[in-house]
Amino acid sequence: MPASTPPRAAMAKGKGRILSIQSHVAYGYVGGKAAVFPLQCLGYDVDVVNTVNFSNHSGYGRFGGPRTSAAELNQILNVMEQNGLLQQDRLLTGYIPGAEATAAVTALAKKLRDRNSELVYLLDPVLGDSGRLYVAPEVVPIYRDALPLATIITPNWFEVEVLTEIKMADAASLREAIRTLHETYRVPNVVISSIPLKSWLTDLLPFPLRPPTNSDADYLACIASSKSDALSSVYIKCFPCLPGYFSGVGDLFSALVLAHFDEAGAEGMAPGESPLSYAASQAVSKTHAILTLTHEAASMLPEDERQATDEELDAREPMRKIKRMRGRELRLIQGQDIIRGTQPIDYKRLEPWEGFWTA
Amino acid sequence: MPASTPPRAAMAKGKGRILSIQSHVAYGYVGGKAAVFPLQCLGYDVDVVNTVNFSNHSGYGRFGGPRTSAAELNQILNVMEQNGLLQQDRLLTGYIPGAEATAAVTALAKKLRDRNSELVYLLDPVLGDSGRLYVAPEVVPIYRDALPLATIITPNWFEVEVLTEIKMADAASLREAIRTLHETYRVPNVVISSIPLKSWLTDLLPFPLRPPTNSDADYLACIASSKSDALSSVYIKCFPCLPGYFSGVGDLFSALVLAHFDEAGAEGMAPGESPLSYAASQAVSKTHAILTLTHEAASMLPEDERQATDEELDAREPMRKIKRMRGRELRLIQGQDIIRGTQPIDYKRLEPWEGFWTA
Repeated sequence: MPASTPPRAAMAKGKGRILSIQSHVAYGYVGGKAAVFPLQCLGYDVDVVNTVNFSNHSGYGRFGGPRTSAAELNQILNVMEQNGLLQQDRLLTGYIPGAEATAAVTALAKKLRDRNSELVYLLDPVLGDSGRLYVAPEVVPIYRDALPLATIITPNWFEVEVLTEIKMADAASLREAIRTLHETYRVPNVVISSIPLKSWLTDLLPFPLRPPTNSDADYLACIASSKSDALSSVYIKCFPCLPGYFSGVGDLFSALVLAHFDEAGAEGMAPGESPLSYAASQAVSKTHAILTLTHEAASMLPEDERQATDEELDAREPMRKIKRMRGRELRLIQGQDIIRGTQPIDYKRLEPWEGFWTA
Repeated sequence: MPASTPPRAAMAKGKGRILSIQSHVAYGYVGGKAAVFPLQCLGYDVDVVNTVNFSNHSGYGRFGGPRTSAAELNQILNVMEQNGLLQQDRLLTGYIPGAEATAAVTALAKKLRDRNSELVYLLDPVLGDSGRLYVAPEVVPIYRDALPLATIITPNWFEVEVLTEIKMADAASLREAIRTLHETYRVPNVVISSIPLKSWLTDLLPFPLRPPTNSDADYLACIASSKSDALSSVYIKCFPCLPGYFSGVGDLFSALVLAHFDEAGAEGMAPGESPLSYAASQAVSKTHAILTLTHEAASMLPEDERQATDEELDAREPMRKIKRMRGRELRLIQGQDIIRGTQPIDYKRLEPWEGFWTA
């Protein structure tokens, strides 16, 4: 073997083993297709259970293929259990179709948690976005029951509101929502992946944490909160929103948070970072860089492949929407050096939000 | 963007798009799990249609999960067609359960071939190994019908014998089998992925192409034959067989052949190499390096995870076999630098077999 080969023990062990339970699409990058390749690039063996096997994501309008029934999910998981193949260090769950399958996955999470208190379980409560539920309403209480099993959750702002039944509109309601996740639902680490930076939220922020005031862009914020004693440590980063809608972004983000989270502290962590804020910073930075690459690539496509969102025109001509979706599939493969960290990108570090609980 | 960023056009385009139709297992690396990650690492967008969704490969003895029916396969492929998502440059097909599903995949290959004469279709005729069929006998004629659609096929020696109905036992029968694949079945590129180097085959080889005579190891040979005019150009490389049985090796090998095959000539090709011999050399070298890594890692496991093959003991204690299988799953993730070509390995170049047709 050549001199550059890493030590044998490190090769044999690798970074660890993740069980990922998510949707699968043949074409494009959402669910498992957005999460698994990045996790593999970052050194994890990933065991992949597909909750659906679709042609493409539902945003195309037309999609097809079988859902994995709760009975089939249980069959796969039961055989893995019998064969001693459920000894993963980490668990990642995303979109699950229907209440019965969600309950099956939650039962598995409980089993793995009972067996291993060190399990790192990232639960991405995929419920909806921008004010609209993707899932049946009866799925929501099953997710609430699952929250105490999680090590980290990565809801967007809408999912925080659905889970906590608290509308975030001011300092008090934002605090109450985060407190509810930590205390009522006993989640130690909460990352709100994207919350629109409306003026009430900007006004709450200490000046150095606010985005530049000379920008026309809309901004989003990522908030990471880790429970410690009575209160929690809260970190935040604002970043500009890219125009248009991209699918699979949340799935990629959650995978990157899980990949970079290490309670013992990761190599490369700077003073003042916590394990959670470090993982969220890596995830925000890499996701934003992949999105920038995707946006640039889409903007170079022929004109009829990149027409703007227009529901009226889309309704008249279904291929219009489909071409737009195709052009906006994440450029994960072309961006794999971003994911591996071998291509320099703009690092968006989450900063401590001093006074979050007391100001 | 940093200075190291590749040109925008290259980023947007990538290496191309592959449609991969193979089995999926949650745990471990066979079928699509052995093929897709390497193809992605090598820069291809891969659209992934799963022909089964199993817990683990069948070598564990116990396995479970749904097969994708022919109707479900057609549903996925039809929606992709309606959405304009079947415009891949390359097609890779591997294990398909049953005659009906094999016929559905063959119909798709015909459609893509009719649409695009430049399509590079690597057909891995997964039929069996070591003298034993994995599939129902009625699948075999469907594969024979599909052969003329292929650009490259990658059978093992047993699959060559099944497809051609010629037992390879001497120079004449070896020539006749390869000639039948090129002429009767009109396959331009044939790679026999592994053929045991029995004495009849060693005796045929020009001296410089024979393995060292001072070795106790069993040897295998990889033979690549490209049709050109009346005869074909034949290349060969002998390499030592690693002890024990590893699953997914053929699936990894086929993916690497496809990834490295470029009719226009690949960057890094040496004088005397053909596009096919170059692709096969890369595939033999990288597959052998991954197997060596896997073998080394397996040999460092605790003793009860690496017990030798023994059917009698396995029958008494099923976990014995399961643990052995688990320990022998390919170390693809730990070997990703081998796949990407950024870690130096021993290069096993296929050499021209002068006089193959005439000697």
